[in-house]
Amino acid sequence: MFWDITHQWKENLMENFVFYSPTYFVFGKEEETRAGHYVKRFGGKKVLIHYGGGSVIRSGLLDRVKLSLKAEGIDFVELGGVKPNPRSGLVYEGIELCRKENVDFVLAVGGGSTIDSSKAIAAGAVYDGDFWDFYQGKSVTKALPIGTILTISAAGSEGSPDSVITNEDGMYKRGATGEAFRPAFSILNPALTQTLPPFQIACGITDIMAHLFERYFTTTIEVEVTDRMIEGLLLTVIKEAPRVTEDSNNYQAQANIMWAGMMAHNNSCGVGRVQDWASHDIEHELSAIYDCAHGAGLAVVFPAWMQYNMKHDINRFAQLAVRVWGCEMDFMNPENTAKAGIAALRSFWTSIGMPSDFAGLGAKEEDIEKMAHTACYGDGRTGTIGGFVKLEEKDVAAIYRLML
Amino acid sequence: MFWDITHQWKENLMENFVFYSPTYFVFGKEEETRAGHYVKRFGGKKVLIHYGGGSVIRSGLLDRVKLSLKAEGIDFVELGGVKPNPRSGLVYEGIELCRKENVDFVLAVGGGSTIDSSKAIAAGAVYDGDFWDFYQGKSVTKALPIGTILTISAAGSEGSPDSVITNEDGMYKRGATGEAFRPAFSILNPALTQTLPPFQIACGITDIMAHLFERYFTTTIEVEVTDRMIEGLLLTVIKEAPRVTEDSNNYQAQANIMWAGMMAHNNSCGVGRVQDWASHDIEHELSAIYDCAHGAGLAVVFPAWMQYNMKHDINRFAQLAVRVWGCEMDFMNPENTAKAGIAALRSFWTSIGMPSDFAGLGAKEEDIEKMAHTACYGDGRTGTIGGFVKLEEKDVAAIYRLML
Repeated sequence: MFWDITHQWKENLMENFVFYSPTYFVFGKEEETRAGHYVKRFGGKKVLIHYGGGSVIRSGLLDRVKLSLKAEGIDFVELGGVKPNPRSGLVYEGIELCRKENVDFVLAVGGGSTIDSSKAIAAGAVYDGDFWDFYQGKSVTKALPIGTILTISAAGSEGSPDSVITNEDGMYKRGATGEAFRPAFSILNPALTQTLPPFQIACGITDIMAHLFERYFTTTIEVEVTDRMIEGLLLTVIKEAPRVTEDSNNYQAQANIMWAGMMAHNNSCGVGRVQDWASHDIEHELSAIYDCAHGAGLAVVFPAWMQYNMKHDINRFAQLAVRVWGCEMDFMNPENTAKAGIAALRSFWTSIGMPSDFAGLGAKEEDIEKMAHTACYGDGRTGTIGGFVKLEEKDVAAIYRLML
Repeated sequence: MFWDITHQWKENLMENFVFYSPTYFVFGKEEETRAGHYVKRFGGKKVLIHYGGGSVIRSGLLDRVKLSLKAEGIDFVELGGVKPNPRSGLVYEGIELCRKENVDFVLAVGGGSTIDSSKAIAAGAVYDGDFWDFYQGKSVTKALPIGTILTISAAGSEGSPDSVITNEDGMYKRGATGEAFRPAFSILNPALTQTLPPFQIACGITDIMAHLFERYFTTTIEVEVTDRMIEGLLLTVIKEAPRVTEDSNNYQAQANIMWAGMMAHNNSCGVGRVQDWASHDIEHELSAIYDCAHGAGLAVVFPAWMQYNMKHDINRFAQLAVRVWGCEMDFMNPENTAKAGIAALRSFWTSIGMPSDFAGLGAKEEDIEKMAHTACYGDGRTGTIGGFVKLEEKDVAAIYRLML
């Protein structure tokens, strides 16, 4: 609340905030060959290299990273096997390995799943209790320093204080956050994303857009600077998406998307405003149960969420439609413009190969009630999700039904 | 240079870069009352409080800051008297004071001039030679930690690795840069800017826009992400400017401008691209000689620079005109659109009270040759300035003549 010049209490104006993004970002071609240099710069002597599997090995990336560590005389152990929607089991394994080997630095080589798994390990390795405490709301204030070598533009975990892990005991997918989760350094080489298949690239782009939408839909008013930054980042990925899904070798387009993906989620465009995040919660149930790609899930969830919640601020939806999708403003009936924006989003995601309904994800109607309940009450939640609109279980179920 | 899929060497694509902005930003109402808390967090035990004069004292801000330091048991000395276009004399005085009093933290309370002067002192205090070395090109790798409490949205020094000082021995105005110049923390309370006179507010807005233009005009191609971010920040300040020059008490508008001013200059929207900065060099001659406000000088310089250099990339100027000023694209003759954009910029700056020519700055035609020579050859320069177009002395003189 704020006492303004008109002598009325106004609510929902820009909130006080802290913004602290101390990650050392190294961006560009071949920078991964200097991984050892940066590990040393940030104090690492015994490194856990954490990664997924096949492509990081096949492409020779893992070998280049090891060579770079050896050249600096840095000792390391390794743990592969991270899967999309990373699981708690491997985290426990990583924590044990760090303790046994006296690891003092965690180096993630991969995408959001690998980075998130690395963050969980880095926090768990220096914590006496169960690392899952952090994913039930405990703030992460201490962790081993983390470095990342990013292989897909998507999650933004390379610059964020966040991590999402699926607990195999109940298949809860939950997030943790804290300053200690900001990587010490992140190496972003767009050339590493040139070997990705189009579907994965499109999933990444969808995730980036979702991170921007989660921040865009807010109850905070008069936040022009963050509105405009979000719109600018959306315009960037919308322009570049068809260029990279058609030709993944387009370095320039990959580079623009990669920096946009980091900026979309390090929160410089989300400061001082209420954010939503219900769509992520709704999607997490889908990817936890059906193990679909997080980006693909978001492509199904977000248009449904928009359709259901549009009425809460028609003008905000119209603003997005006009500024980002180039829709004509219908001044007599802005709702038409808002709807046109959602239709444009659906078309766009379809055009880059994203699914648009439950069938496309392998999701089942009979699971809706269970998912809606878990999203609102599972694992410590208290009945509502979302900051723009507080959704109850019945709302979440209705949104799932819009995806059939 | 980059070997692309079409098997041709392409020049001028996005460059490798490092982005490192570790400043702890604390934004919002009354945050200055926690200055002591943040000084302590970043290790300060004996502080130099550096400031300008009148308003910081009259408004009670300085007292609030001292109270906050005392409450944390932090000792301090103070040095006021910073003037706009800060001078080397006071820097030497500050360095001597730091050494004599064993100061370990410099706290700037003021605008860009105060912060820049504080940075120079912080570097000089731990350097054996003359601090001016840094302003002649030596990289700043070591300095006392710096905190800032910002009182005007303008220079962006609260988040930048830069500082500009005028050497009284010859009246050279020069910049220094280096990672050690990024403040440890910066407190941004938009309410502190509500007492500024409209002319100063408008000068600050002009400076912010100039920082964005210096980055926008580039020879690097296909840098959509930074183009769009710059455009978004320009659209923000263009919308908010009339609201704050008409009513400086508009907190929300001041807040949007304040965050835009930081983002405009911490370089997140300037990464990976050639930047220009000739207009700043051209302006620095004016403010060094006539002691005009830096923002006012930029309002005179930039349209002239644009007019002179437009021909080097008509489409980039047209893009700015369409996306930021809402000009119609003239597809038959994009030069008309480019010109319309420059005209819109002139009108905008006039509308918020900025001067538009030499007379408005108190500058004199007879000094043109001297200023053009100093801009290109003074104090170690080697004949050209600018990254978008390399300007020689005769070009700079011609640009000055366009301001008559």
